[in-house]
Amino acid sequence: MLDVAIIGGGPAALSAALNCRQRNKTVCIFGRSLDSSLLFAAEKVDNYLGLPDVNGEEMLNRFYSHAVKNGVEFQECRVTQVLNMGEHYMINAENNFIEAKAIILATGLSKSKGIAGELDYLGKGVSYCATCDGMLYRNKKVIVISENEEGEAEANFLADICKEVLYIPLYKNVSFLKESVTVLAAKPKAVIGSGEKLTALETDQETISCDGIFFAKNTMPPDSLIFGLKTDGKNIEVDRRMSTNLPRVYAAGDCTGAPYQIAKAVGEGLVAALSAVSDIDQMTKK
Amino acid sequence: MLDVAIIGGGPAALSAALNCRQRNKTVCIFGRSLDSSLLFAAEKVDNYLGLPDVNGEEMLNRFYSHAVKNGVEFQECRVTQVLNMGEHYMINAENNFIEAKAIILATGLSKSKGIAGELDYLGKGVSYCATCDGMLYRNKKVIVISENEEGEAEANFLADICKEVLYIPLYKNVSFLKESVTVLAAKPKAVIGSGEKLTALETDQETISCDGIFFAKNTMPPDSLIFGLKTDGKNIEVDRRMSTNLPRVYAAGDCTGAPYQIAKAVGEGLVAALSAVSDIDQMTKK
Ligand SMILES: Cc1cc2nc3c(=O)[nH]c(=O)nc-3n(C[C@H](O)[C@H](O)[C@H](O)COP(=O)(O)OP(=O)(O)OC[C@H]3O[C@@H](n4cnc5c(N)ncnc54)[C@H](O)[C@@H]3O)c2cc1C
Ligand SMILES: Cc1cc2nc3c(=O)[nH]c(=O)nc-3n(C[C@H](O)[C@H](O)[C@H](O)COP(=O)(O)OP(=O)(O)OC[C@H]3O[C@@H](n4cnc5c(N)ncnc54)[C@H](O)[C@@H]3O)c2cc1C
Repeated sequence: MLDVAIIGGGPAALSAALNCRQRNKTVCIFGRSLDSSLLFAAEKVDNYLGLPDVNGEEMLNRFYSHAVKNGVEFQECRVTQVLNMGEHYMINAENNFIEAKAIILATGLSKSKGIAGELDYLGKGVSYCATCDGMLYRNKKVIVISENEEGEAEANFLADICKEVLYIPLYKNVSFLKESVTVLAAKPKAVIGSGEKLTALETDQETISCDGIFFAKNTMPPDSLIFGLKTDGKNIEVDRRMSTNLPRVYAAGDCTGAPYQIAKAVGEGLVAALSAVSDIDQMTKK
Repeated sequence: MLDVAIIGGGPAALSAALNCRQRNKTVCIFGRSLDSSLLFAAEKVDNYLGLPDVNGEEMLNRFYSHAVKNGVEFQECRVTQVLNMGEHYMINAENNFIEAKAIILATGLSKSKGIAGELDYLGKGVSYCATCDGMLYRNKKVIVISENEEGEAEANFLADICKEVLYIPLYKNVSFLKESVTVLAAKPKAVIGSGEKLTALETDQETISCDGIFFAKNTMPPDSLIFGLKTDGKNIEVDRRMSTNLPRVYAAGDCTGAPYQIAKAVGEGLVAALSAVSDIDQMTKK
């Protein structure tokens, strides 16, 4: 079992991981590719003390190699769920299940709370992971709403199982879809249902009846990742130790709210790591 | 009038100053020499993301030049008091008085709450600044208790004014004292007085009657620097914006409590700066 599992892949995750290693804990970062960090797009950064005038990509690479040099491991994947197992946590990383004593969430800015009804029907027809939940929709009709190309693999996977798959891309240049997947140009508006079960997706064009809706997002609303996590709707609530309301779950960086800046992410990553280390040690002593 | 005055001189102060400049505010750091930062003594630092494996002195120099390149000004001095003037603040930097709209405290670890009675007699015989308060002790007997060589200048200044000056160094190698100053090897224990006015210093050797006691410290208890500042005894109380209980007074770095680490100091410096900038802009709009 890992001491600390970190979900993210930007400055907050890398600083947290580096500092867990400095305290001799086992740690792995579960994150999408480095270039999915917001920082990757920055043309010029000049306000992170000590590293004047670099671009975001170069900065990320320096951060990454500093962490790796200290023994940080990185597993490229999308985490869709974190389960509270009582004494530890279990991470679902594209159907690899990893156990860890503590979790640090460093998932970055959560851009959306989702569309109307989305969270209400989570587990009642709404899913964030085709490989996890696809089998529930065998021979049924599903819609995949995707912010990125990774959604195409999800749709292709579902095409083998489901009766009908509609694909709504929220990005340009769809490239690798199977023929049986139908692409729709529409803007999703709301998830509609009976309360118990979703029945349709409302878009700006039409309302489409369906059995399941899969969202493939760049970032997920943090409270959809882990049950019972306290947020103010958008940001994860933390105290000065970077503890969330859940035991041994910490958060750092943009996911804890403004200001959205590197130095804050790096500082909070450090604090979250030291809190995790100290709480794990405390638990082990008992 | 300055937009922001920063008291400190370590990573927290430099990060705050850099980020005030990035938002185009006028800013000056009022600090003792760079080598008085705790970081200066670090032989090897490897947990500040992006700057692997440097020593403290080199890191401070990089931090300093990054800040200066962005137009940060640095005034080497010891601040003994910050006065709340209502709409702005006034800093006493060795009897230079500087006005600023907002204050960021980045004074580092406060090692001591002082000796017994010290804060009770602040302004009633206890002082942290000879050039500020010396004249009150003309022809009287004073004791200077000093953690560093700067106290020698204070004692020499007082020697010209006072009837008698005793000097208790808490460091090695006293070098530049006037002949009329008497050096004592003793450990200060308590400030003693009538309630209204101090009358003596108790040491591990003897109790010495006197009219005034001057402390020259590496760091001062933060609530002796600025009236009404809320601390938990040692650390300045801040919220997630790095605001203290006083309007437009922020704190960052070791002075806000553990963990005592560079990345936390740099991150908090950034947050304090952005909060100060936004609150100043808000005030100006009104
Ligand atoms: C154009 C631009 C310019 C900027 N310029 C500056 C600047 O000059 N100075 C400055 O201080 N800041 C700047 N920023 C902001 C800075 O990039 C962010 O504050 C910083 O990247 C936040 O770090 P983070 O680690 O919290 O989040 P991010 O860097 O966004 O990293 C979050 C990571 O988590 C991953 N992730 C999220 N959910 C999951 C999941 N479920 N499973 C796996 N991985 C997941 C994401 O893919 C991403 O890689 C800029 C941002 C942009 C967009
Ligand atoms: C030996 C050693 C090794 C360390 N190693 C590491 C490490 O590997 N990694 C890590 O992250 N951290 C390390 N640290 C801790 C790190 O140095 C501190 O966390 C960091 O310096 C805090 O920054 P700061 O700006 O809050 O305070 P400081 O760096 O202490 O700066 C405070 C400054 O304010 C000045 N000041 C205070 N009061 C006044 C006043 N009234 N007027 C004017 N100036 C004033 C002080 O003189 C000082 O220059 C180490 C510390 C030491 C001592």
